[in-house]
Amino acid sequence: MPAPSSDTVAAVLRHADASLDASRGRLFELLRIPSISAQPDHRQDCQRAAEWVCTQLADLGFTAELRPTKGHPVVVAHHAAPTGHRGPHVLFYGHYDVQPVDPLDLWHSPPFDPQLVDGPHGKRFVARGAVDDKGQAMMFVEAMRAWKEATGGIPAHVTALIEGEEEVGSPNLEPFLAANKAELASDLALISDTGMWDIDTPAITTRLRGMTYVQMTLKAANRDLHSGLYGGSALNPINALAHVLGDLQDANGRIQLPGFYDKVKPISNAHRRQWDALGFDEGAFLGKIGLSAPSGERGYSALERLWARPTADINGMWGGYTGAGGKTVIAAEASAKISFRLVPGQDPDEVFEQFKRFVAERLPAGATVDYECGTRSPGIEVNVESPWVRAAQAVLTEEYGKPAVLMGSGGSIPVVTSLRTVLGIDSLLMGFGLDDDQVHSPNEKFEQRCFHHGIRSHIRLLAKFAGG
Amino acid sequence: MPAPSSDTVAAVLRHADASLDASRGRLFELLRIPSISAQPDHRQDCQRAAEWVCTQLADLGFTAELRPTKGHPVVVAHHAAPTGHRGPHVLFYGHYDVQPVDPLDLWHSPPFDPQLVDGPHGKRFVARGAVDDKGQAMMFVEAMRAWKEATGGIPAHVTALIEGEEEVGSPNLEPFLAANKAELASDLALISDTGMWDIDTPAITTRLRGMTYVQMTLKAANRDLHSGLYGGSALNPINALAHVLGDLQDANGRIQLPGFYDKVKPISNAHRRQWDALGFDEGAFLGKIGLSAPSGERGYSALERLWARPTADINGMWGGYTGAGGKTVIAAEASAKISFRLVPGQDPDEVFEQFKRFVAERLPAGATVDYECGTRSPGIEVNVESPWVRAAQAVLTEEYGKPAVLMGSGGSIPVVTSLRTVLGIDSLLMGFGLDDDQVHSPNEKFEQRCFHHGIRSHIRLLAKFAGG
Repeated sequence: MPAPSSDTVAAVLRHADASLDASRGRLFELLRIPSISAQPDHRQDCQRAAEWVCTQLADLGFTAELRPTKGHPVVVAHHAAPTGHRGPHVLFYGHYDVQPVDPLDLWHSPPFDPQLVDGPHGKRFVARGAVDDKGQAMMFVEAMRAWKEATGGIPAHVTALIEGEEEVGSPNLEPFLAANKAELASDLALISDTGMWDIDTPAITTRLRGMTYVQMTLKAANRDLHSGLYGGSALNPINALAHVLGDLQDANGRIQLPGFYDKVKPISNAHRRQWDALGFDEGAFLGKIGLSAPSGERGYSALERLWARPTADINGMWGGYTGAGGKTVIAAEASAKISFRLVPGQDPDEVFEQFKRFVAERLPAGATVDYECGTRSPGIEVNVESPWVRAAQAVLTEEYGKPAVLMGSGGSIPVVTSLRTVLGIDSLLMGFGLDDDQVHSPNEKFEQRCFHHGIRSHIRLLAKFAGG
Repeated sequence: MPAPSSDTVAAVLRHADASLDASRGRLFELLRIPSISAQPDHRQDCQRAAEWVCTQLADLGFTAELRPTKGHPVVVAHHAAPTGHRGPHVLFYGHYDVQPVDPLDLWHSPPFDPQLVDGPHGKRFVARGAVDDKGQAMMFVEAMRAWKEATGGIPAHVTALIEGEEEVGSPNLEPFLAANKAELASDLALISDTGMWDIDTPAITTRLRGMTYVQMTLKAANRDLHSGLYGGSALNPINALAHVLGDLQDANGRIQLPGFYDKVKPISNAHRRQWDALGFDEGAFLGKIGLSAPSGERGYSALERLWARPTADINGMWGGYTGAGGKTVIAAEASAKISFRLVPGQDPDEVFEQFKRFVAERLPAGATVDYECGTRSPGIEVNVESPWVRAAQAVLTEEYGKPAVLMGSGGSIPVVTSLRTVLGIDSLLMGFGLDDDQVHSPNEKFEQRCFHHGIRSHIRLLAKFAGG
């Protein structure tokens, strides 16, 4: 089977343009289902959302079913390769669950009564899940529908994997992937759950930071002490913990764990040039959150610090008396939670060991430390030379008339790690969200313009994936 | 009137020895009154305890009355100078209120049902208030009673001031002293609310540390941030607070506030020699609380660090996420409570200013700090050459056959500051408590041997104060 002609693609795009109201109508059906995965009261709603998605895929000719897990079901649907197909087998990942809606009184309309409202960029959809991830997942489904309605069939080899527990940390996804490895074997994963650079500039996210998360408790005396009777002789664990953790960064913002930067992979000059060319305004970025000066490692641009340099942030710290008024206590212990955002090359287990060495070198005599290590995930870098990234770049350039930014993300998307670890495949992260979409917050929205471009971009991408 | 002869003193001491059971019986009456000043339910009990003390003093020939305050009443009682008296006018200070008794289940007997039990040093009294301060206050009352019963009169010029709010910070005492300044004018205050060096070694407390207590909040962004999206660019206030406060002491334990030590008055060589001669076992002191190594300023003995050197202890610190599991948040702010124990010479207001300078010098760009300053009291040093300290030294040497230790106290006794500030008088702190008396804890106790020696020592001191 040859690759679809440009006339065919144009016809499918025209069909999608003409069907935009219908596409939005289907999305609104899904948005009306309050599938909050975190809340047991909404268990049945999650089931309903899964069934709704399953039906959509079945309508498009997929062999679709709900697969049980210990939590909410996973929708798995297969669309066989067309005859003579020579393109990749694509695993499309999305999630049908959404975040809780509190605080409800900050919403301007009920979170599960989707609204079409006017905004500075035209129409927008307002509802919980509008962009994360129902709106973004439906772009791909609608792209397939346009192909089917306009040409009678979908030109690609697609497996869809739509889970219902992303917003609660996907506790059952890795076991599910492992148990169904053969069935889910594919060439790449396609994920629409990330953002654009801005509403006119498309983006592919090619870097994600990983993490080593540590909780520690520094212990001194076997009980709380009176600071008058013991102060000057007894070790104060809060002073000691502040002393240790206050040394995490040096005066230049360099993290002082021994060997911490040894394996950090520097970004290419081409990458750096592209990011520099974006003209990212760190002053404005920080100004929005009330900060007047940047922090972090000297000698790197803001985007490099956010996307390609590791961090060491104390996420919580506590010890001693924290109530009203004064209490002259020397506490028995003090604790902290510290997360290291990691970049490709760094080994999360090694970083934990480096941290323990860092602490041991600074720990005063008489103190002991207990550690607990939580999340450990490596930073991820997608091969930007892969044919799939090149295909997505071409598609986005056609759609927007300008090249896509190869963005980094300061955070991590655990499923990307799971897909690589368990199924051995890379993810292509082509997303259409904007920074101001209020993800996880009241009045979550999705620009209709982004939704529309997203459907069109996926239509083009399906043509590329048709092979030929 | 001449000073009492040594035969007279010996007769009074014999009378006290013979009356020990009766003295203990009266103390037990007072111990049965649950005069917990912190608990509104015990308001009437505080009133009863005040009345009981008032009656005791009236029995001894004092003009005694309860004086109302905004809280619990103060007992004020005057015993005029005997004819021809040339000694000092002594203001005896004590308190009839006690600490709460929680946790009740750790008591071996009901806290307000005083028990006479056997211990390694003979009999001991177990009850809330046994030593703090009912037992110690009653030593002086019983000493006066012995004088009255054995000789028909008390040879000294005494005003008694027994308050009922010491355990809640004496909020009404300073206004009371100020309002009754003329009535309370006297030459020295005598306070029995401190300790001995050990059960065989008497002590006079001549140094108390003061305090500057500060609460601070370091603020960065105007809201909590996602550490993935902002980490590497946004200032983390917990990292910043740890960095600042982790620098409070240098590697030698020296406090790094600018000018902090400038006005610290060093102790005399004589003082240092006496303390060194005590052979204080810091290893044992710390071993009891599970510590294996001393902390604090290098180059000073343990007692000097505890009694004559200032400290900087973080008493509480908090910020960010402190619940179970991990949360990758960059908090908007972080807070701490810090107390500086001060020694004579240091100005508590200046120390607050020095701390603010110390913080400002280390504060990263973009951070702001709010301060709240609580307690500010200077360290106190009693003039050890005063006739009253010399008299107490002589008395304790007679009673114990060895000289009294001139001790410091790492803590502060606010009333000593108030008496100096408002009435302009020094305090003589002759106390008979022991380190293991479980003050403020379950099973508070007072050794009968200490009580007995305390009564006898006060009998001797009254003879000294008789003048002549």
